[in-house]
Amino acid sequence: MQHTRRMLNPLLTGLRNLPARGATTTTAAAPAKVEKTVNTVTILGRVGADPQLRGSQEHPVVTFSVATHTNYKYENGDWAQRTDWHRVVVFKPNLRDTVLEYLKKGQRTMVQGKITYGEITDQQGNQKTSTSIIADDVLFFRDANN
Amino acid sequence: MQHTRRMLNPLLTGLRNLPARGATTTTAAAPAKVEKTVNTVTILGRVGADPQLRGSQEHPVVTFSVATHTNYKYENGDWAQRTDWHRVVVFKPNLRDTVLEYLKKGQRTMVQGKITYGEITDQQGNQKTSTSIIADDVLFFRDANN
Amino acid sequence: MQHTRRMLNPLLTGLRNLPARGATTTTAAAPAKVEKTVNTVTILGRVGADPQLRGSQEHPVVTFSVATHTNYKYENGDWAQRTDWHRVVVFKPNLRDTVLEYLKKGQRTMVQGKITYGEITDQQGNQKTSTSIIADDVLFFRDANN
Amino acid sequence: MQHTRRMLNPLLTGLRNLPARGATTTTAAAPAKVEKTVNTVTILGRVGADPQLRGSQEHPVVTFSVATHTNYKYENGDWAQRTDWHRVVVFKPNLRDTVLEYLKKGQRTMVQGKITYGEITDQQGNQKTSTSIIADDVLFFRDANN
Repeated sequence: MQHTRRMLNPLLTGLRNLPARGATTTTAAAPAKVEKTVNTVTILGRVGADPQLRGSQEHPVVTFSVATHTNYKYENGDWAQRTDWHRVVVFKPNLRDTVLEYLKKGQRTMVQGKITYGEITDQQGNQKTSTSIIADDVLFFRDANN
Repeated sequence: MQHTRRMLNPLLTGLRNLPARGATTTTAAAPAKVEKTVNTVTILGRVGADPQLRGSQEHPVVTFSVATHTNYKYENGDWAQRTDWHRVVVFKPNLRDTVLEYLKKGQRTMVQGKITYGEITDQQGNQKTSTSIIADDVLFFRDANN
Repeated sequence: MQHTRRMLNPLLTGLRNLPARGATTTTAAAPAKVEKTVNTVTILGRVGADPQLRGSQEHPVVTFSVATHTNYKYENGDWAQRTDWHRVVVFKPNLRDTVLEYLKKGQRTMVQGKITYGEITDQQGNQKTSTSIIADDVLFFRDANN
Repeated sequence: MQHTRRMLNPLLTGLRNLPARGATTTTAAAPAKVEKTVNTVTILGRVGADPQLRGSQEHPVVTFSVATHTNYKYENGDWAQRTDWHRVVVFKPNLRDTVLEYLKKGQRTMVQGKITYGEITDQQGNQKTSTSIIADDVLFFRDANN
């Protein structure tokens, strides 16, 4: 039985996974045969705030943000320095608990994972598209204090 | 003179770069010294539609979409197959022209670049956050027809 | 009981894994706790010859070579074009069989994996250091004939 | 005039670049048009010894080694833990000087670059194949002492 789960995608509970600009999810007893694709991301930067536990009891997810900086040179010689804040989500059980316990605000970290797009409802009840990096691995560098 | 360009970020014209959840841009004669970070993405998949030329005469940008698929296994044994549509933007002059001329809908392509977040105004005039992959390189595989 | 297997490392049979310049292997009931490291490679290029089945009945391994090209500019304005031949080894059972059956000489392919160093004995019985890319995934592009 | 430089490849002086199993280099006024390939490596681990300055006055190169660890599980349940020592070479002028001055033995570092194969002559005058990672970027994490 194959059907599109319009509302809650149990695995991505934190994202309240309605089909969004970025993603459609179909569910079946076995994954349909599709051509191989690649979706890999590596970010390395400072953590914005202590990680948060979200989602539900059955489907907990830990989220945190990481900042990266990019320098651009304008034709007029000026430089632009852009800071991008990435939203990281961790579903893998052991990795999730380790991140929640040990990763701290200001710490330098490296995340390897994949990009996914979904929709979240903000405090005012508005539907907003959201982009997350689902972590396959998270590396810690010296904790923030030293 | 360092100031935040609230409205138009000449380089990312296509994104109408207001400071968004994901990015703040400051401009100066030379980039402020910041700690090195990493922001690298590799996606490989099929092109959603023929690339489009956007932006302005002075700051043209070519955009196209690429689909990637990910299989997830639920605890109950069901499989979820998720298709994510990535928005790719190309600023590099030569790369931009090559993509516009030769990349076609349905073609398989690989994009190496970085993630950036901005805001775009949709047809209804609503501010929407947008995520783009700024391409450093684009590889073509067999054109879509054969 | 922890001991160094000087001679044959069953998993990497094809490399006759004597401790080499590049690698020392220790074996134990559980892996010793070590600091996380990263060793990821992505190569994309043409296959040099049809893949070969090597190793033993218990530990088969499939190997093939892939060529990549790099352009260098000398100070005097000349360009150097360098072709590097990478040696790929595939241990993963399903991936191994698929590569052996379907990947052909001249075909374009992408390999994601990690670098490892070992020693092999050439036809003249000399010990030679060897570098291999252990494939985690192999993507196929159009077969070589069309 | 296109010819194969059998002996010294000025840019890769440190490798005494004879055509080796892994590489052939041709030189010309402009690089021959070849199909795009990909050759990207990311390693992250501890530095083996303080970086060394090699090559010649005109073509200096800085080299250092980095260790990465991989865990393998045998069919009999035993674990193998493999340490691979990677040889990194840095040609980029600024990056080269920064690495030589600030990178220290025992420090954790991340290198992004490409793999290349060459031949070096050891102290006994024997020709040996060598694998190096040519660094495009090197990130430093906390110096080794704290």
